[in-house]
Amino acid sequence: MRDRVVAAFTGIQDAICKGLEELDGSARFVSDQWERPGGGGGDTRVIQNGAVFEKGGVNFSAVHGELPEAIAREFKSSSTQFFASGVSIVLHPQSPMVPIIHMNIRYFEMPGDGRAWFGGGIDLTPIYVDHAQATGFHQTLKATCDRHHTDYYAKFKNWADEYFYIKHRKETRGIGGIFFDRLSDGNSLPLEAQFEFVKDVGNTFLKAYLPIATANKDLPFTEAEKNWQLLRRGRYVEFNLVYDRGTHFGLQTDGRIESILMSLPTLASWQYNIIPEAGSREEETINYLKGKTEWV
Amino acid sequence: MRDRVVAAFTGIQDAICKGLEELDGSARFVSDQWERPGGGGGDTRVIQNGAVFEKGGVNFSAVHGELPEAIAREFKSSSTQFFASGVSIVLHPQSPMVPIIHMNIRYFEMPGDGRAWFGGGIDLTPIYVDHAQATGFHQTLKATCDRHHTDYYAKFKNWADEYFYIKHRKETRGIGGIFFDRLSDGNSLPLEAQFEFVKDVGNTFLKAYLPIATANKDLPFTEAEKNWQLLRRGRYVEFNLVYDRGTHFGLQTDGRIESILMSLPTLASWQYNIIPEAGSREEETINYLKGKTEWV
Repeated sequence: MRDRVVAAFTGIQDAICKGLEELDGSARFVSDQWERPGGGGGDTRVIQNGAVFEKGGVNFSAVHGELPEAIAREFKSSSTQFFASGVSIVLHPQSPMVPIIHMNIRYFEMPGDGRAWFGGGIDLTPIYVDHAQATGFHQTLKATCDRHHTDYYAKFKNWADEYFYIKHRKETRGIGGIFFDRLSDGNSLPLEAQFEFVKDVGNTFLKAYLPIATANKDLPFTEAEKNWQLLRRGRYVEFNLVYDRGTHFGLQTDGRIESILMSLPTLASWQYNIIPEAGSREEETINYLKGKTEWV
Repeated sequence: MRDRVVAAFTGIQDAICKGLEELDGSARFVSDQWERPGGGGGDTRVIQNGAVFEKGGVNFSAVHGELPEAIAREFKSSSTQFFASGVSIVLHPQSPMVPIIHMNIRYFEMPGDGRAWFGGGIDLTPIYVDHAQATGFHQTLKATCDRHHTDYYAKFKNWADEYFYIKHRKETRGIGGIFFDRLSDGNSLPLEAQFEFVKDVGNTFLKAYLPIATANKDLPFTEAEKNWQLLRRGRYVEFNLVYDRGTHFGLQTDGRIESILMSLPTLASWQYNIIPEAGSREEETINYLKGKTEWV
C-alpha cells in the first residue's frame, strides 16, 4: 500500500501543480526535495509572486520513524513506529476577490499494531463570501462524495464545519468543505475503498477551485478590500498555528519547518478591534462565518 | 492583597503609558474598559499608527471565576476558583531599528487551596541585535534583580532563555531578559517580598526600554531592513500563538480576544526559506538567536 499511495499522491501533486501554473500564467512552482533526519522526506513545491498567487505550496511528503509519545497516546497506540504520507496544499492569491484554498490528503500507518487509515479534506476561505460560488464549490465536493457513499457529504461537511473553527473568534475559517480522518476507526470501510475515495478527493481539487479562481482573478478591487484580505489572512494564521492538527503534528515530529509553514501568507495583518460596517460585504462575510450554512 | 495588587498594577500601567506617549510624540493610547462575562474585567490601552509605534498595547486586567479543568490540573490544584491580575505589554515599533518589547507582571490566587503567587518577565526582540544595547538592557534588569536577591538575575535570565524559545525554529524570540513564575513554589519567598519584586520589575520597564528606543527611533533604514522586520514579526506571531502560556491561558479562559491578541503586529510576513547572506547583519542576528549569550 505504501508504494501505491506514494505513486498516487505524487501523480496528484504533479497534476495540481500543472493546473495551477496554467491558471497563474506567470510564476512557476519551485521544487525542493528534502530528507527528514528521522526517516523519509518530501518534495515541497512553492509558488511565489505570481500573477494570481502571492504565495502557495503543493507539498508531498512520505515520512516514517518514531512517533513522539504524546502523539502515540493520542492515537491510542502502544506502538510508536509510524509511516505517514500526504499531499498538502495552501494557496494565498494576490487578489482579495480570489479565495484562499486548502487541501490535504493523507495516509497513516502504525505498523506495530497493524492499523492504517486515510484522511483528508478540502476547504475554501473566501475573503468575501459569494453565495453562488460557495454553493458551486460544495456541489462539486458533494458529487465526489456521492460517488462513494451517499452519507459522506453530509457527514464530512459537518466535520469540516467543526474542524475549521476558530474557537477563540467564534467563527469558522471560511465556508468549509469536507474533512475526514481515520475512516477505518468505528466503521468497517476497507482500506482499498478509503484509498479510492482519497484519490478522488485529490482529483476534485482543480474542478472545485479553478472555476472560482478563473472567474474572479481579474476583478478589480480597492485598497480597503486588500486590507480586509490581510486581516482575514491573520485569522488564517491564527487557525493554522493555534488549532491545525497537521501543523502541530509536523512541529511535534520535528518536520521540515519551511514545508509545514508554507501555509502562512506573505503578508498578514492584525488591527485592534475591527468591526465591519453594518450592511457591508465584510459584515455579510463575518455573518456567514459565525453561522452555519447548508450550501447544497 | 487583591486590592493592593490592583492599585499597584494600574499605577504601573498609567506611568508606562505616559512614558511611551512622550517617546512617541504623536499617537496616544486609547483606553477600552471591558467586563468579562465570567467575572472581572480590564482596561486595554492600545496605541496605533504612531511616530514610533505602529501598534502596541499596555493592558491591565483583573479577572476571577472558574478555571477550566485542564488549567486547574496544570496548576496541580483541586480548586477551580481563581483570581488573576496583570499588566501585559507588547509594542511593535514602526522602524526595524527599534526592538519589539514585551513585559508582563501578574498575580494569581487559588482561594480554594490558599495558594497565591506572582510572576512576570521582560524580554527584548531586536530586529537587528546590537551587542552594546543588549548588554545595557540586561544590565538594567540585573540591577533590579540584584536589589532583591543576588541569585535572581542568573536564574531568571536562564528561565527567559528557555521560555522565549521557538522550538520549531531552534531559535529564541529575541535576546531574552528575565522570566519568573510561581515564586512561592519550591521556595519560601513570602508573598510580600514577591510583590515588592514584581512592582520593581514593572517600574524597570521604561528604564530598560526608553534609552534604546530613543537612541534608535530616528535612524535611517532601507526597504530590505523593513522586510526583515516583517519576517521577524512573523516569528513573534509564531511564538505567541504556538507557545505563549499567557496567550493560551487567555484563549482557554475565554478572555477578551482583542486584548489578548493586541500582541500581534499590524503587518507580519512569511516568505519561503529565507536564508540570510553570509556576513550580513541579518545572519549575525540569527546567530545570536541560535546561540546563548551571557550579556552581562
